[in-house]
Amino acid sequence: MASDTAAPTDTAPTAAVDTANPPEVDVPALTRLLDGAYADVRDLVRDNLATYASVLEEADELGIDDFRDRVREVVLELAATGQTALGLPEEYGGGGDLGASVAAFETLAFGDLSVLVKVGVQFGLFGGAILQLGTERHHEAYLRDIASGRLMGCFAMTETGHGSNVQALGTVATYDADAREFVITTGGDQARKDYIGNAARHGELAVVFAQLEVGGRREGVHAFVVPIRVGGEVAPGVRIEDDGRKMGLNGVDNGRIWFDDVRVPREALLNRFADVTPDGAYESPIENPDRRFFTMLGTLVQGRVSVGGAGINAAKVALAIAVRYAVRRRQFEATPGAEEQLLLDYGLHQRRLLPLVARTYALHFAQDVVRTQLHEVFSAAPEAGSGEAARRELEARAAGTKAIGTWHTTRTIQECREACGGAGYLAVNRFAALKADTDVFTTFEGDNHVLLQLVAKGLLTDYASEFEDLDQLGMVRFVAGLAVETVIEKTSVHKLLERVRDLLPGGDEWDQEAGLLDSEYQLAMLRFREEHMLAGVARRLKRGVDQGLDPGAVFSEAQDHVVGAARAHVERLVLEAFVDRMRALPDDTPEGNRVALGLLCDLFALSTIEADRAWFMEHGRLSVQRSKAITREVNRHCRLLRPVAVDLVDAWGIPAQMLRAPDLI
Amino acid sequence: MASDTAAPTDTAPTAAVDTANPPEVDVPALTRLLDGAYADVRDLVRDNLATYASVLEEADELGIDDFRDRVREVVLELAATGQTALGLPEEYGGGGDLGASVAAFETLAFGDLSVLVKVGVQFGLFGGAILQLGTERHHEAYLRDIASGRLMGCFAMTETGHGSNVQALGTVATYDADAREFVITTGGDQARKDYIGNAARHGELAVVFAQLEVGGRREGVHAFVVPIRVGGEVAPGVRIEDDGRKMGLNGVDNGRIWFDDVRVPREALLNRFADVTPDGAYESPIENPDRRFFTMLGTLVQGRVSVGGAGINAAKVALAIAVRYAVRRRQFEATPGAEEQLLLDYGLHQRRLLPLVARTYALHFAQDVVRTQLHEVFSAAPEAGSGEAARRELEARAAGTKAIGTWHTTRTIQECREACGGAGYLAVNRFAALKADTDVFTTFEGDNHVLLQLVAKGLLTDYASEFEDLDQLGMVRFVAGLAVETVIEKTSVHKLLERVRDLLPGGDEWDQEAGLLDSEYQLAMLRFREEHMLAGVARRLKRGVDQGLDPGAVFSEAQDHVVGAARAHVERLVLEAFVDRMRALPDDTPEGNRVALGLLCDLFALSTIEADRAWFMEHGRLSVQRSKAITREVNRHCRLLRPVAVDLVDAWGIPAQMLRAPDLI
Repeated sequence: MASDTAAPTDTAPTAAVDTANPPEVDVPALTRLLDGAYADVRDLVRDNLATYASVLEEADELGIDDFRDRVREVVLELAATGQTALGLPEEYGGGGDLGASVAAFETLAFGDLSVLVKVGVQFGLFGGAILQLGTERHHEAYLRDIASGRLMGCFAMTETGHGSNVQALGTVATYDADAREFVITTGGDQARKDYIGNAARHGELAVVFAQLEVGGRREGVHAFVVPIRVGGEVAPGVRIEDDGRKMGLNGVDNGRIWFDDVRVPREALLNRFADVTPDGAYESPIENPDRRFFTMLGTLVQGRVSVGGAGINAAKVALAIAVRYAVRRRQFEATPGAEEQLLLDYGLHQRRLLPLVARTYALHFAQDVVRTQLHEVFSAAPEAGSGEAARRELEARAAGTKAIGTWHTTRTIQECREACGGAGYLAVNRFAALKADTDVFTTFEGDNHVLLQLVAKGLLTDYASEFEDLDQLGMVRFVAGLAVETVIEKTSVHKLLERVRDLLPGGDEWDQEAGLLDSEYQLAMLRFREEHMLAGVARRLKRGVDQGLDPGAVFSEAQDHVVGAARAHVERLVLEAFVDRMRALPDDTPEGNRVALGLLCDLFALSTIEADRAWFMEHGRLSVQRSKAITREVNRHCRLLRPVAVDLVDAWGIPAQMLRAPDLI
Repeated sequence: MASDTAAPTDTAPTAAVDTANPPEVDVPALTRLLDGAYADVRDLVRDNLATYASVLEEADELGIDDFRDRVREVVLELAATGQTALGLPEEYGGGGDLGASVAAFETLAFGDLSVLVKVGVQFGLFGGAILQLGTERHHEAYLRDIASGRLMGCFAMTETGHGSNVQALGTVATYDADAREFVITTGGDQARKDYIGNAARHGELAVVFAQLEVGGRREGVHAFVVPIRVGGEVAPGVRIEDDGRKMGLNGVDNGRIWFDDVRVPREALLNRFADVTPDGAYESPIENPDRRFFTMLGTLVQGRVSVGGAGINAAKVALAIAVRYAVRRRQFEATPGAEEQLLLDYGLHQRRLLPLVARTYALHFAQDVVRTQLHEVFSAAPEAGSGEAARRELEARAAGTKAIGTWHTTRTIQECREACGGAGYLAVNRFAALKADTDVFTTFEGDNHVLLQLVAKGLLTDYASEFEDLDQLGMVRFVAGLAVETVIEKTSVHKLLERVRDLLPGGDEWDQEAGLLDSEYQLAMLRFREEHMLAGVARRLKRGVDQGLDPGAVFSEAQDHVVGAARAHVERLVLEAFVDRMRALPDDTPEGNRVALGLLCDLFALSTIEADRAWFMEHGRLSVQRSKAITREVNRHCRLLRPVAVDLVDAWGIPAQMLRAPDLI
């Protein structure tokens, strides 16, 4: 039974902690650790948030048109401080630092999220597309005005009929060799561009994704620069409709755009990866059309990294309010005649909030990893084709972190609102806006369920590298069509299971003997789950194909396992990020911070295992006794963290004005 | 292994179903079954919803003041049709049928929810309090005008400082025997009435809950009729503040009220359960002050029954939209060159929506049971004290159904919004309003976590009936204080475990041998869980007390088990309601409907067991093989229900205008 008592290992820094002896947290030092290399940028954004704090109230008070204009104004003023164009090259007035750009964006997510999304549309999506897909002529023509905000623009990819399967877009760009122009045409209402930020009111130029047709031949989706307004008036041949009021983000002017044979010069093609010669020959250094398309898309990965990080920071705002409320609000007395008890002294309330705090810390560190990878990949290898493997890894990690991070956002804000009762429902507190504004984070920049399938596909193709050039988004087609058979044949299921066995740290009984607080044990559990699930997916697909079943049906039945495997993969990456950070803590880290972070890391790991303990029991990796011991440890960690809960949310450094919660904290 | 293959039992009506041979659903017949005895009332409300369908748009288009006035206008016009006062006595212009009143309210939840909540405040809370807590003088004075809507009023119980623990309210009503008046006083800002519907704009009268003080002695919380506006102006001594914009329900004018020594005549006391004689003697037929208070509160149980039912119907609206979208929207082709696949043909999408459809059906039938109980208890026993046990059972069931039902609402609407992608985020579709308006359902009429503790407390006191007079809401105090020791001592833990054993249908191996689709098996599983969890709570509390630990700490550590036991109890009730209904289906039920309902019932039961399969494995009631077989059955049932999914949501009879989703369906 000794193995079931969850005794900490000798090395666990949290061994000596008990509820009577809580760690002493040095909040400023913890903030410095969390801010990391981008502390200065984050502080600049914090100052700006405080300066423009009134926008939180204006979101409630202004009508939709006025609020859109106000958000534009704030965005332009933020641009003047240099915080919004950090990702654009210095020669065009930017900061030339992609990592800093993402860090700034994450921090901006503490504030009004219409401002955030407008910044994302203008500088990330629109500016990023011009930068990444265009060449010098486009950079020279536009980037300076984009960086300053003088030229507002759109990223016009999504159509009403196609959001996830963007390779099947319906907009067409036909090359007219005589006129040396492209003719942009919307093929019916399902092909209208939709939900496009900056379209309804402020955008002058749009990067339009369309099926390129040259000499009667379709060459796949390419991007074109198309003016949609001239001198404030909608351009000839362009029709724009307002998407109208949305659940949230009403400071962003989303709209629909139709193109009725709109002509743009040949030079409007963003021609970094492909070009059309004046006389109508199509040229590209990337031969495979799928690979070309996903190389183009891949350059836009910063959007996903940014949204994931923003979602995690929005969750922090909700947690900071709910935790502070829980140490102020009292309800019911524990013993007759006594003072009523603080909410956070209830075990259930700790259970509701503290594992979310731990997961938020874990995701913060995972976001550090993906942001760093983004920065390194884009700084080191500006040319297509170089660092292919690193790019693929980045894309999968960005997709996974975005999906898991933004679901965490939705869930956390909901729990925090409920934990603040009726007061949490008033618009004067922040939950109303936080909930409404973040709700679409699970959908835009890639629907989370589709993103996880993309992650799973990457994992499967790791075993069959010759297929990695296939479509990156078209997971369904990929797995269900041709590739299902071939990948699975190449992917010896047997080998996968061997890999799983190799993961175990030693002996058949390893998972019964290791200490629950041993991070090697925790990591091994998540690694085992990931590999086993992946093998299971491969087995299921192979079995279905071997039985001659319809590929669509085979995929459909395996799909929840596909998504499960991807989720397991991402959670393993997140725990690794946290454990790696713990192991690399600077020597001067205050002991109390070290202890508190250790408790958070264990709480994240154990509550993650606990949430899926049925799976671990089903697969022979968790005994009943041990499963119950994990639940006890989760509860114990909640109690241990209770005294430092406020410090832990304070360390996120959210400007006080952003915790707009007059009745709550 | 035969027991693991989940072969249907001989009697299972779904045995012959396969995906190639889906049941043929008679939608109108299914609607009749669901509407039950209140079909006429529901149809009246459906017609009214269609008539006032424009209010869905007006919620977006009008400013907050105009929308509040518009909602009031709609409520008054609905009142003129008779649908809103069905719960008030016929002699005052009501319908004299509480069950019909709740059915009407549930149906109204298909439409704009500000209208719903305003109706609930006016006719349910305000009118209900006058009816249930007042006597003839109050009925004569007010009920006619309340029924017509001429007199709008407030139910002023909640205060800023006390929402859940209402026995500790801070408002005081002191009897001045010389003047024969009560003096109502707000004791500081924490004691201001808060979140009170009808307060900010339309209410003239308020039922105010306050600590009654007579002759220097506190007699507990009582209700008083207090004018808050006279001729449209705020009454002297009353101060009102608007709660302002809320996350949703902005057609309801919630506000705060302070009373500065406001005098009301002695007759303003709602004196059904207690009175003060002119010369200042306090009198009540109920001696125990706690029992008196909870008897008063108990008469207001219809509010919880109503909110639970409304939440379930709001979830139906979201599911109807998402299911219909999923059979229209295509994305990705299954095989190259083929048409793109419908969302609902993806296994994952079925998994996301269909178990929620099944749970909604289950909750619908559970709501039928609690509504019927409410109707019977209030029709049969108008006097306090009669049918005590039935009332207690009703209160617990109402609390539990409300909690589980409204969490289902929040979760379902969220999943459906995500399943409709970016289009689901536009305000022109219904999700924005559905999400925002229903969000507070988990909080008002009792915070869900508190309600589940109330349910658990009822279950514990069942074993120690002498304690049933203790506070009904003060679960924390109850368990943590005196009662923890006494209840647990009386509640032989040993006996509880014996009861658990008695539940098993036969033999030690029963749960390994029964067919997964045998409803006796499913019920036994949920009964076992409930009783075992309850015994676990009792054991934990007893152990803590035996060890001499602080009662607050003991309770805090057991609290998640307390809530878990209550949840298990309610889910058992819900499954019983569904199974009972299946067994009592009318003989003329079309075979296809019988089959489809059988599939839904199994899907609800199995997905409920699946969701907690870790617990069942931990407690020796589910083998690994059987656990996996349950997951397979859940998936299979999703596939079987896929062809009739649209019929199943159509059968709810939601008026077409309420499925406001021009881009989606």
